[in-house]
Amino acid sequence: MEFVAAPARLSTTDAQFAHDFAQRLHWSADTDAAIEQRVADILADVQKRGDAAVLDYTARFDGLQADSMQALELRKDELKAAFDGLPAEQREALESAARRVRSYHEAQKKANGESWSYRDEDGTLLGQKVTPLDRVGIYVPGGKAAYPSSVLMNAIPAHVAGVEDIIMVVPTPQGVKNPLVLAAAYVAGVHRAFTIGGAQAVAALAYGTATIPKVDKITGPGNAYVASAKKRVFGLVGIDMIAGPSEILVLADGTTPPDWVAMDLFSQAEHDELAQSILLCPDAAYLDAVQREIDRLLPEMPRKAIIAKSLSDRGALILTRDMEEACALSNRIAPEHLEVSSRDPHQWEPLLKHAGAIFLGAYTSESLGDYCAGPNHVLPTSGTARFSSPLGVYDFQKRSSLIEVSEAGAQVLGRTAAVLAYGEGLQGHARAAEMRIKR
Amino acid sequence: MEFVAAPARLSTTDAQFAHDFAQRLHWSADTDAAIEQRVADILADVQKRGDAAVLDYTARFDGLQADSMQALELRKDELKAAFDGLPAEQREALESAARRVRSYHEAQKKANGESWSYRDEDGTLLGQKVTPLDRVGIYVPGGKAAYPSSVLMNAIPAHVAGVEDIIMVVPTPQGVKNPLVLAAAYVAGVHRAFTIGGAQAVAALAYGTATIPKVDKITGPGNAYVASAKKRVFGLVGIDMIAGPSEILVLADGTTPPDWVAMDLFSQAEHDELAQSILLCPDAAYLDAVQREIDRLLPEMPRKAIIAKSLSDRGALILTRDMEEACALSNRIAPEHLEVSSRDPHQWEPLLKHAGAIFLGAYTSESLGDYCAGPNHVLPTSGTARFSSPLGVYDFQKRSSLIEVSEAGAQVLGRTAAVLAYGEGLQGHARAAEMRIKR
Repeated sequence: MEFVAAPARLSTTDAQFAHDFAQRLHWSADTDAAIEQRVADILADVQKRGDAAVLDYTARFDGLQADSMQALELRKDELKAAFDGLPAEQREALESAARRVRSYHEAQKKANGESWSYRDEDGTLLGQKVTPLDRVGIYVPGGKAAYPSSVLMNAIPAHVAGVEDIIMVVPTPQGVKNPLVLAAAYVAGVHRAFTIGGAQAVAALAYGTATIPKVDKITGPGNAYVASAKKRVFGLVGIDMIAGPSEILVLADGTTPPDWVAMDLFSQAEHDELAQSILLCPDAAYLDAVQREIDRLLPEMPRKAIIAKSLSDRGALILTRDMEEACALSNRIAPEHLEVSSRDPHQWEPLLKHAGAIFLGAYTSESLGDYCAGPNHVLPTSGTARFSSPLGVYDFQKRSSLIEVSEAGAQVLGRTAAVLAYGEGLQGHARAAEMRIKR
Repeated sequence: MEFVAAPARLSTTDAQFAHDFAQRLHWSADTDAAIEQRVADILADVQKRGDAAVLDYTARFDGLQADSMQALELRKDELKAAFDGLPAEQREALESAARRVRSYHEAQKKANGESWSYRDEDGTLLGQKVTPLDRVGIYVPGGKAAYPSSVLMNAIPAHVAGVEDIIMVVPTPQGVKNPLVLAAAYVAGVHRAFTIGGAQAVAALAYGTATIPKVDKITGPGNAYVASAKKRVFGLVGIDMIAGPSEILVLADGTTPPDWVAMDLFSQAEHDELAQSILLCPDAAYLDAVQREIDRLLPEMPRKAIIAKSLSDRGALILTRDMEEACALSNRIAPEHLEVSSRDPHQWEPLLKHAGAIFLGAYTSESLGDYCAGPNHVLPTSGTARFSSPLGVYDFQKRSSLIEVSEAGAQVLGRTAAVLAYGEGLQGHARAAEMRIKR
């Protein structure tokens, strides 16, 4: 069977561009009411019956029969054995990726994640204490899309933050374990791991069961059931983001070899038929060249069926008036991955306001960032980069304000607070402030 | 009518302490299915009919008839006039509070909110760019509980972050405007303001209407309708936290004047019958003294009915074995407000892991922090301080990872990425990395 990858060819000067462009971008996060109801039922059941419910759902949905939750725990020695059993090349790649991810997140903590305080002129201390969460749950998808790199990207920032208890859950349909995922859990220093998944795993982590400890926050991607369950337990525990389909936007000035860019578009498209790959460039001949490389390279790709569908349904090669316009369009999209494939990426970077990760220059393929450059590959999708950030050490920390008002400070602040408190009709607040004022 | 404030007297050495304590703490965030459905309907209607729906609901729920949304906009000159019309004392208090809140949040941005980057040994650049959100919506409750201080606490961190468009919504039932709230919006530099509220205001901000601009994030407290609406639009826009009833925990070593502590408990209890005030102290005589002050001071309080009910239903004076045990209990509660009313608060502060804000020493009444010490008064409630933080500049910023892989870096990283990508079955990722390797 022959596959054709035919991304839409658009031009910003077309009269109907705004309409065509909006249509390409459209993706609805609307949830399925049937899924919502089933997830609500599963959560309620796990909350009520604990381990027994988790065992039932694991048997039913994952085809994995177990007599007890103990049988679903992955022991440390099993994780280590998985690591030891890998080819040397994979062991080294995992360790090298983990090292770089760790060192990046340590820099992140140092730059933005330390406690701070100061004293004002009255000797009053003000600041914030930054502390790690006690215990977090990491959801790792299993089955078709089992990504060891996701284990590293979730567990390592938690570790760097200082979380003392990292619980991983990963479904293993029919009991089939992915050795790379187990090995990654070993390398990342996950504290406990269970072969459970779906809404039942999210429920177990959020409510706790006799076997699964209740966590403070749940991170990691999952299918529609997992996303719905995370959204429902939000508030009782923290969650990271709700991920939509993955996307890449490439801003090209036409100087990068077109086969490199074609392969970067493939690397996004191969994830999923809903994934989105868009190329913006002011040079029409370059867009033609990239399309030729797409046509030439596609037959070699094992995942060509997915790539062809993703590019044809959701991909686009867009001719822009200039690079400035390409940057402005990018800001409207707020892409998850943004490649600036240009000779001088630093000329354009300051114009880029919203993106999960910005990959600068022709050598920075998104895939290097996905695995081992260091920054996190868990990124805001579907335009949520307008208001959210990559997963990071800060997701595994929280802050407490620190205030120590000096006696002198209480005299000044007490008057201000009392005026405002009386203004709000809160006399208790006012009197508490006034009591600290010397008469 | 005489009111009695009778907080539960518990002791950690009682056999049934764990049970009684758990019962006092219990608070259910379960939402009302009827409210959920009404909110879903309102959101769908505003999404469909825009301004017309907002006008309808404002007439129906707030008793405020208007022909057009323009009539519901508070113009800058109206905000200024409200400020100019206040007594000098209130003007000065608002400005002084705003100054301190601004200077604290500027310190916060400098300490934890700046962009950073470094280059590794191969010349590869890694870092994060921190940028403000473009546009945010601030929900300010109206009616009974109209808090100008909340305007400052939401708008000022957004301003300090660099948000260029701050949209305030505040319901004005029957068209009654609170001059202090309008004045606070003027002082805080809100860009636009509308007299709308409830789920319809949240919907207008999240979806945008012809008049109300679509925002990127919505912050600020509200009633059950507002909380439910915020939770529903989460993902399309960012939200801050979903607030539960307010709480204070006082750890006392018995050296603070007992009337000060009694008034601090009142200042929490007066918010709301569901508010919770708990005192932990290893000195039984001191607990007696505080109860005597509660009895003595209660009749003087204008909000004595609310205070009495809140303290009797949800309050507790708890005798602990020692201050260490009090600190451990505090960590289990993860209180919103935590007063360490002790001669040497710095002895205990390192033991305190989870709290929204920590008030150190007898002079630091919570009410000073509520209004003007500087730190934010929007804090995680109901134990969510285990995983979340005070509202801050970081809530109005987002981060983009920056990666610029050098040619030398691509040689090393390309091999690692390719091994892992082949291991995950993602050949497009592997080939994109390999293409950057020189043969």
